[in-house]
Order: sequence, then structure tokens, then C-alpha cells
Amino acid sequence: MAFTIRDASTPVYKRGLRTLLHLLQRADEHAKANNTDVTALLDARLAPDMFDFKKQVQIATDHAKGGAARLAGLEPPKFLDSETTVAELQVRVQAILDYVDGIDAALYDGAEDRDIQLVYPWATYDFKGAKFLTYWSLPNFFFHVTTAYNILRHNGVAIGKADFLGK
Amino acid sequence: MAFTIRDASTPVYKRGLRTLLHLLQRADEHAKANNTDVTALLDARLAPDMFDFKKQVQIATDHAKGGAARLAGLEPPKFLDSETTVAELQVRVQAILDYVDGIDAALYDGAEDRDIQLVYPWATYDFKGAKFLTYWSLPNFFFHVTTAYNILRHNGVAIGKADFLGK
Repeated sequence: MAFTIRDASTPVYKRGLRTLLHLLQRADEHAKANNTDVTALLDARLAPDMFDFKKQVQIATDHAKGGAARLAGLEPPKFLDSETTVAELQVRVQAILDYVDGIDAALYDGAEDRDIQLVYPWATYDFKGAKFLTYWSLPNFFFHVTTAYNILRHNGVAIGKADFLGK
Repeated sequence: MAFTIRDASTPVYKRGLRTLLHLLQRADEHAKANNTDVTALLDARLAPDMFDFKKQVQIATDHAKGGAARLAGLEPPKFLDSETTVAELQVRVQAILDYVDGIDAALYDGAEDRDIQLVYPWATYDFKGAKFLTYWSLPNFFFHVTTAYNILRHNGVAIGKADFLGK
């Protein structure tokens, strides 16, 4: 059974997105158990010039939908990044999980050689699909999922590695 | 050009390991510029029950050598985990970078279906190679590289996303 670029991407995004759903639930439970406002966790960050928890979740999901869509030759769906509550973030993560899950597997044929261009205000990046996945999408995706986890852990939420790895 | 499990693993480990070398250098520069002992950074952690920076580096390298070796059907080289200085950590990371780089590409043929068993004191995990890479090795590897980065960032080292992504 050959290994494909879809094998290296779709299950990784899906599992990481499920981790985000789990982290959101754990943050909510932590706040309820401690009779505090979960907003303090959503707004928490590891350094003054780093993004807060909710933005880490938003960016992680951007890399999941952007990675999956671009490898499949699709335009990624846009979100307004207006989520401010656990419930709203859960809706976003679930929507992107469903989106990634629903992409036709056949669209990934030859994705390793697909030309992918990312245009940002500060730079334009040109990749072939394989390098886009391994040098851009996966490192960025894991960076933001891990940082979301680290923000909760740093703020006393009782989670461990298993809460990151998921099932 | 077909995408292989080696394409999804070797360049990812190598780039992440180069990121660790870069982070070690930035930590060292930060301490020198501030006339402080870099040991404080090496011993820093994000939560009392999380591993410190040097252990994050050690575990990240374990996942790189363990991932590459097991996919190639080799026994991972062992290290004593006795590094306590920037220089010693740099030697370890470079040694593992050279090790991963030196594995014969042909050994990865069929690695996606290879049976891989991990035996820990608390559990035994059985994977096929593809799932070992995407559900275990890559998430763990990125987790520890990112956490090493986050520890430095949280402690005032002037690094940004580009220092994580590398080149």
C-alpha cells in the first residue's frame, strides 16, 4: 500500500483539530471548576508580543484548512476570525474538521508536485506541494496547536502530553 | 515524482533539528548580551511539572533519531541524556542531524507498512509505519521543538516565528 501525500496530511490535521476541540473543553472545565471566567484563558499568552490562546486556535485551523485545500487544488474557505468564546471557537474547529474530512481524496493525486503560492503582505512564497506540506504547513500547524496547549499548561490547566497527542 | 514516507519524515526532522541548533545559539547570544548565565534558560520551564528547555531539546532529538531509525528498520542510537551546557546540547543535536542525514534512503522502502512497537514502562504501542510517523513521531517531535521555542520566548529571548520555521 503506497504512502501518499494525503496520508501525510489529512489524518494529521484531523487529529490536531480534535486536540484543539479537546483543549477548548479542558479550558472550559478548568474555568468552571475554579469558578473563574474562561475568557482569561482565551486571552492568555506566553509573551507580550505573542498571540493569545484564541488566536493560536484560529491560526492552527487556518493552517489545517489552508494546507488541505491547497494540496487538493482548492481555494481555502475564509473565516472572519471573530470568535471570542469557547463555543464559537468550537464551531470553527468543528467546521474546519468537517471541511478537511470532506475533501475528495482523488484531488490529492499528484499534489506533491503542485505549484502552491502563498502571498502575504511581507513576502511571497512559492512551493511544490511536498515542500509546502513538510516545510510550511505541518510545522506551522503543530506550532500553533502546541502553543495553545502550552498556554493552558502555563496557566495551570491540568493537562498532560496525552491531551496533546489525542487518540 | 512519487511522494514517499521518507519525503514526509527526513526533511522534517532535519529542519527541526537545525531549528534546535539555531535556538541554542540564540539562547547563548541572549545570555551573553544580557550578561546572565545561560543555565537559567536551559533550566527554564513553562509549568512546574513540565520539562525544562534542555530536556525539551533532548526529547525532540530522541523523536528525530527514533522516528528516522524505526522507519528505516534500524535500532536508534542511544544517548546518555547527560548534556547540561549549550555546547553539549549542540553536539548532541548535530550528531543526530548527521545520523538522520546518513540513513540509506533505500531502507525506507515500504516503511509505511512496517510494524513498529514502542515499549514504555506505562504502555506498549503498536503501529504501522505510516501511523507511527503521523500520529506519534511528528506530533511529538514538533511538540518538543515548539515547547523549546516557547520557553525561550516566554523568558524574553528576542525570537520570532522565522526562528522556529528556519530555512
